[in-house]
Amino acid sequence: MTTPAGIAPAVHQTVMTQIVLPQFTNAHGTVFGGQIAAWIDVCAAVSAQRYSRGAVVTASIDQLHFLAAVKQGMVVVLQSQVNMAWRSSMEVGVRIEAEDPRTGSRQHCCSAYLTFVALDAEGRTRSLPPFDPGADPEARRRARQAEERRAMRLRAREARQRELTGS
Amino acid sequence: MTTPAGIAPAVHQTVMTQIVLPQFTNAHGTVFGGQIAAWIDVCAAVSAQRYSRGAVVTASIDQLHFLAAVKQGMVVVLQSQVNMAWRSSMEVGVRIEAEDPRTGSRQHCCSAYLTFVALDAEGRTRSLPPFDPGADPEARRRARQAEERRAMRLRAREARQRELTGS
Amino acid sequence: MTTPAGIAPAVHQTVMTQIVLPQFTNAHGTVFGGQIAAWIDVCAAVSAQRYSRGAVVTASIDQLHFLAAVKQGMVVVLQSQVNMAWRSSMEVGVRIEAEDPRTGSRQHCCSAYLTFVALDAEGRTRSLPPFDPGADPEARRRARQAEERRAMRLRAREARQRELTGS
Amino acid sequence: MTTPAGIAPAVHQTVMTQIVLPQFTNAHGTVFGGQIAAWIDVCAAVSAQRYSRGAVVTASIDQLHFLAAVKQGMVVVLQSQVNMAWRSSMEVGVRIEAEDPRTGSRQHCCSAYLTFVALDAEGRTRSLPPFDPGADPEARRRARQAEERRAMRLRAREARQRELTGS
Amino acid sequence: MTTPAGIAPAVHQTVMTQIVLPQFTNAHGTVFGGQIAAWIDVCAAVSAQRYSRGAVVTASIDQLHFLAAVKQGMVVVLQSQVNMAWRSSMEVGVRIEAEDPRTGSRQHCCSAYLTFVALDAEGRTRSLPPFDPGADPEARRRARQAEERRAMRLRAREARQRELTGS
Amino acid sequence: MTTPAGIAPAVHQTVMTQIVLPQFTNAHGTVFGGQIAAWIDVCAAVSAQRYSRGAVVTASIDQLHFLAAVKQGMVVVLQSQVNMAWRSSMEVGVRIEAEDPRTGSRQHCCSAYLTFVALDAEGRTRSLPPFDPGADPEARRRARQAEERRAMRLRAREARQRELTGS
Repeated sequence: MTTPAGIAPAVHQTVMTQIVLPQFTNAHGTVFGGQIAAWIDVCAAVSAQRYSRGAVVTASIDQLHFLAAVKQGMVVVLQSQVNMAWRSSMEVGVRIEAEDPRTGSRQHCCSAYLTFVALDAEGRTRSLPPFDPGADPEARRRARQAEERRAMRLRAREARQRELTGS
Repeated sequence: MTTPAGIAPAVHQTVMTQIVLPQFTNAHGTVFGGQIAAWIDVCAAVSAQRYSRGAVVTASIDQLHFLAAVKQGMVVVLQSQVNMAWRSSMEVGVRIEAEDPRTGSRQHCCSAYLTFVALDAEGRTRSLPPFDPGADPEARRRARQAEERRAMRLRAREARQRELTGS
Repeated sequence: MTTPAGIAPAVHQTVMTQIVLPQFTNAHGTVFGGQIAAWIDVCAAVSAQRYSRGAVVTASIDQLHFLAAVKQGMVVVLQSQVNMAWRSSMEVGVRIEAEDPRTGSRQHCCSAYLTFVALDAEGRTRSLPPFDPGADPEARRRARQAEERRAMRLRAREARQRELTGS
Repeated sequence: MTTPAGIAPAVHQTVMTQIVLPQFTNAHGTVFGGQIAAWIDVCAAVSAQRYSRGAVVTASIDQLHFLAAVKQGMVVVLQSQVNMAWRSSMEVGVRIEAEDPRTGSRQHCCSAYLTFVALDAEGRTRSLPPFDPGADPEARRRARQAEERRAMRLRAREARQRELTGS
Repeated sequence: MTTPAGIAPAVHQTVMTQIVLPQFTNAHGTVFGGQIAAWIDVCAAVSAQRYSRGAVVTASIDQLHFLAAVKQGMVVVLQSQVNMAWRSSMEVGVRIEAEDPRTGSRQHCCSAYLTFVALDAEGRTRSLPPFDPGADPEARRRARQAEERRAMRLRAREARQRELTGS
Repeated sequence: MTTPAGIAPAVHQTVMTQIVLPQFTNAHGTVFGGQIAAWIDVCAAVSAQRYSRGAVVTASIDQLHFLAAVKQGMVVVLQSQVNMAWRSSMEVGVRIEAEDPRTGSRQHCCSAYLTFVALDAEGRTRSLPPFDPGADPEARRRARQAEERRAMRLRAREARQRELTGS
């Protein structure tokens, strides 16, 4: 989520930092998956709120991949941004790095894509401003891939519905 | 996850029940997404441990869909089972229903598929027994679809790697 | 709480599964008593809600016996059902087993009896449907013993009151 | 747990104070039973540790009576002391009062009796010093009633075992 | 916070007891600072509510000194009282001792001074009764030092404001 | 904590984002002070670890001022950096802003200064690299004020010790 020189970070970029305390670990002394999922949901929801200026609800968490276990005592840094927005839904990407406090070295340990729906005060969906990735090539790549993942999600949803209706 | 008459429930079927207390809600008075993800991870991990007889780690949470918001005071019932097992990884399916305590009626509010890797005492992957869905048509359907999702996951991983290497 | 062949499980039977994470343990590395009591209260409350179709409050937790310590990493399975119902109160029985994830073997580690009072929307007690244990001999035994425990509870309450009034 | 003039409070008397924050409540806006049970277990364990000078485990929570609901914002005051000690087990009594912060008035809302077993460093039971209630008539009454409850517990345990062995 | 013979403890004196469970520790196996700060805030708020008979909000936590690390398994005893009251604000002092359950010996491990503002039902500040330390020399010393700390706080606030306005 | 154009942010600058969920609130529907103190301690500890490359313990939290209440549903953004370092201790400054998700406007709601001590693997204090605020005038101002606060802390400590020894 580093931004090239000359390009301001987007207003919806969000950073969350945590220390892996014993209360967040499983019996192996590493963060348990559900705790990371909980952090991801909060960090991504802030990005979605910042883009949409209002209430949002999580519609899906898809492709949450755990690449490496994170041990007790490590620092966890989550970074999220809106990748793409459609009529009333957004895709948010979250990248998680584990930072060793003794060396400062960081390891990419987890990635996730979430979709959020923007709601108005009555709980109905509301329209989103069109997404503009700007000139940042990273933002443009994320927007393009978000469209591909959306196409995949729609195909998967159709497959589930065909299965349910037996057609 | 109901089992037809004459077919014993699989040993890896797991049921978890929760009441939506205020400490689990967001500012809208509904369960926040990350809390559901945390419950899903625990419920699914028990199924994976029961199938594999030993330690497991979450490798991914994919396709966690929130179909309906769950209000404070509702009863949440999670049901999970191993859908398919490969060399050292498994797919677990979780279905969540929200139960209204005044009527007993249940609404399907969330579904998720997770993959787990089985580990030995030294933290290396270990082999799993071959998966046998038996005669239950539901179990057979879940196994077939798990294979399809695994193919999708492998294709998505290849796409990510092509993107990273610029090919 | 196994149900004999040919007898459907009662609608108020409830199953709750937990993994003993470090956040649930005491300094000995075993679940601390108050955490088990908290799980028992939730599991039993669901049974009471399912039987009574509405709001309930815990009136007492009596005879919560810890038979064996439960270590970090174990799976905890709580099972509860309404044992007997009176005018507006119910007794719920909870049985807790600790399951070793490496072998699947289960050990009975805790039992408890709780009483709940059914409330209406204004917080007044409301009437319960008469309890019918049906043909299941286990359910009949539980109902009979619940009556005995109720008699004991009433005698103990009278003793407390005699003591307070000095008679 | 007030001590008459001229009688020093026992070293095992313990006081715990809590404010009922939203995270401790159920859907009715009152403390949920399991949370109170968790507080009781901690408060009573401190009394048992103070009497026995070492590690203890909860053996049972019996006769935990909820006399009145405690609303959000109230102050909860728990007071506990060892009522009686035997070879390696103790009974601890806990009294809970809800204090209204606007008036300071207190209402007795919950009482409980717990038994603890004293353990040595290897986890074996260890002997306790003989219990001396001293001259305080309240302490003497509590010791006498603890003996009666112990007799009841032993009779109940025998009844359970007769039932199990079918005799 | 011991009170000399013949002097009744003030109504705003508050005692809170905790056991250091694993969920309260950092990676070094000692209570993490933020958890102690959370306990201090609750204990001190009860003293402020008891003195002011109504709602209060924390205005500042100043001079929270950690004198010694507190290990898992230790008993933590917090004691607080109102040191001094002004028009609508109070200073509360909190002293924390760590008690070794095997010996009963206590070590002073933390001290803190907090200020609270008393609010009415509309959230406006409300007047406090004048503070009377009475005859207890300890209470008189605390009141005198609270005045000195208040003078220091006002000087520090002026320094911050001079800095901000560049004067 | 914004960094002027042309000046790279210091490696020890830390950002933590939270959403005010119901579990973090008091009976007034605002974040309770102890929760904010807990977040501050984690955020500041990360800055201290990043500067010192190793383990740290909180020595004091001083001058934690609550300027405005933070309501449920708000986004909380904590930003911290090391202000100054001495032989083996550091001062960390934390600034907290409450962000309204509907408008994106931010309000400064809390500030705090904490001191940390750097420890080696045996728990002894270890030396810190000399602090260099660089060319950033904000960093230079923070370093200068940290020295003034340190002088104040040392004077206050001496005053406490004089009081204790009666001189």
